[in-house]
Amino acid sequence: MSQRLTIALDAMGGDHGPDMVIAGADIARERHPDVRFLLYGDQQRLEPLLNQRPALKAVAEIRHTADFVAGDAKPAIALRAGRQSSMRLAIDAVAAGEAACVVSAGNTGALMAMAKFVLKTLPGIDRPAMASFFPTQRGESVMLDLGANAECQPENLVQFAVMGAVFARAILGLPQPSIGVLNIGSEDMKGNEVVRAAAASLRDMPLPGRFHGFVEGTDIGLGTVDVIVTDGFTGNVALKTAEGTAKLFSEFLRRTFATSFLARIGYLLARGAFKRFRERIDPRRYNGAMFLGLRGVCVKSHGGTDAVGFANAVAVAINLATHGFNERIKEEMGRIADAPPLPDTKAAAG
Amino acid sequence: MSQRLTIALDAMGGDHGPDMVIAGADIARERHPDVRFLLYGDQQRLEPLLNQRPALKAVAEIRHTADFVAGDAKPAIALRAGRQSSMRLAIDAVAAGEAACVVSAGNTGALMAMAKFVLKTLPGIDRPAMASFFPTQRGESVMLDLGANAECQPENLVQFAVMGAVFARAILGLPQPSIGVLNIGSEDMKGNEVVRAAAASLRDMPLPGRFHGFVEGTDIGLGTVDVIVTDGFTGNVALKTAEGTAKLFSEFLRRTFATSFLARIGYLLARGAFKRFRERIDPRRYNGAMFLGLRGVCVKSHGGTDAVGFANAVAVAINLATHGFNERIKEEMGRIADAPPLPDTKAAAG
Repeated sequence: MSQRLTIALDAMGGDHGPDMVIAGADIARERHPDVRFLLYGDQQRLEPLLNQRPALKAVAEIRHTADFVAGDAKPAIALRAGRQSSMRLAIDAVAAGEAACVVSAGNTGALMAMAKFVLKTLPGIDRPAMASFFPTQRGESVMLDLGANAECQPENLVQFAVMGAVFARAILGLPQPSIGVLNIGSEDMKGNEVVRAAAASLRDMPLPGRFHGFVEGTDIGLGTVDVIVTDGFTGNVALKTAEGTAKLFSEFLRRTFATSFLARIGYLLARGAFKRFRERIDPRRYNGAMFLGLRGVCVKSHGGTDAVGFANAVAVAINLATHGFNERIKEEMGRIADAPPLPDTKAAAG
Repeated sequence: MSQRLTIALDAMGGDHGPDMVIAGADIARERHPDVRFLLYGDQQRLEPLLNQRPALKAVAEIRHTADFVAGDAKPAIALRAGRQSSMRLAIDAVAAGEAACVVSAGNTGALMAMAKFVLKTLPGIDRPAMASFFPTQRGESVMLDLGANAECQPENLVQFAVMGAVFARAILGLPQPSIGVLNIGSEDMKGNEVVRAAAASLRDMPLPGRFHGFVEGTDIGLGTVDVIVTDGFTGNVALKTAEGTAKLFSEFLRRTFATSFLARIGYLLARGAFKRFRERIDPRRYNGAMFLGLRGVCVKSHGGTDAVGFANAVAVAINLATHGFNERIKEEMGRIADAPPLPDTKAAAG
């Protein structure tokens, strides 16, 4: 089993706990026959689940621990008191080189705090960011930060831009990704000091992509740029607003077709098309927020997802681990450090 | 004509200029037969348009000015140099008591700067806010600020909450509206200092509604609360992200029905239902952002809207003017000022 990519799973995390994680791992195994799993959690709960899935059992190993991080635990407390938790031990496996990546559907704040503490940030990165890709009219884009850093400085946004661009190259396969900073208007003078200073820096920097300038909320769905850079407060609100709008739209559509007999017949005829439509907007397809900027691959699955969504999060982790993503970020940050010094960003932002 | 409600229109504002404004005013006239219009703009351009619409001409008066505010003018420059512009003279009409409200589809920043300078803020309000109502799974909610204040202090958010709740009572007809502060999680410790301090204040305050606590981006579409309070940066991004997601969804739906013959037949049968669906999500229906907190009613129409959308913005202005909205805000701010002093918000936020 030594040639296989090893994935550490926090088997106790998420709203549906071990059942969902084990079922998700089994789907991931089918899709990626060359991986093996380290399952961190309660042996008494995991073993019966694994016995029902012999093919998974053959490529999985239970690492017993009775402790786990509660969904509502404060990150600082989880960090101090959760050293033997399933989440922590799964991260430790990456730090020790035993696993190539870790996936958890547990407490986001605790996972970020532990991953940052255990794995440390990459050279040149001050703060890791949460990133996710999502559908647009042009294909797929990546947005970061999605909630790890509620307050950011211009240099954080600059680092997010580099990480996002490397991601777009390595994972989305775009050789020259375009990068935009999320703002409330496209003119230079718009927004706050942080976004203006970040944009001023990005304009003159050797980037692994092309700096487009400011983008607005509408540009996310349009796919105006490949990489959308924002602070964690704005990014989290934008992501969740998009999710809420998609749900609202689906609900309105459902009510529309319930209104008349003809509409119901029409729905039956278009059933196949609707199925493809639902698959296209299925949030499980975009499950798996990545913690970028760490010396190790850590992916957060949505807590309320099902096995299919969790398997997608595992796929994201495999993708990051096999594309040498972190090596490329190190290279790009080195390139920026070697570049001639920039003018003072505050002065340039005016 | 003295008993009619008078509406001042910036006839030169918007991407489609006088044609759109005059056509929009004509639709508004049909819907509200008891109003009259003051049309500020270039007489040579307005007169021929008005001559084509005798019914509108009978209740409209052109106030000639050759000057107008460019769409890309900086607000500070428009404020200094645009004293004879159509936008400014329309606002002046409200300040002079000649008109009950003003509607413009022109430059948002300039309109806000001029309206604030000319009309002044209401007692107890430090900064006016842009507000709009929008559809939810439960009905309609109001959100503010949508872009007037990129950076806010806790007291600004508190004032937005009061204004939003008064709006929900007066315009949405909700006797006890629920109020939420937009954040990146519902727990007390989440987010930044500003939202935590604002929430701590709102918890103990005599409000014209019920304080719900924090809400997240998904709650906007769900309609979890009637009033969503946020800073202008986050609110603007959330609003435009929702618009972009709705467009993305529509586009995916269109592509879905183009995929197969059966789906097209289904679409034809369900055509009536789809028409109602499109009407429901039509952005023109929600056109008309209100500047709340001023001593006068000022409504901003989307610059790219058509006559139907502009007529809806006029309807919003009429609604605010006839419901004594500003009087109620004054009353509520007085009630808060008379209440016992609050504990220090920074200490209470911990």
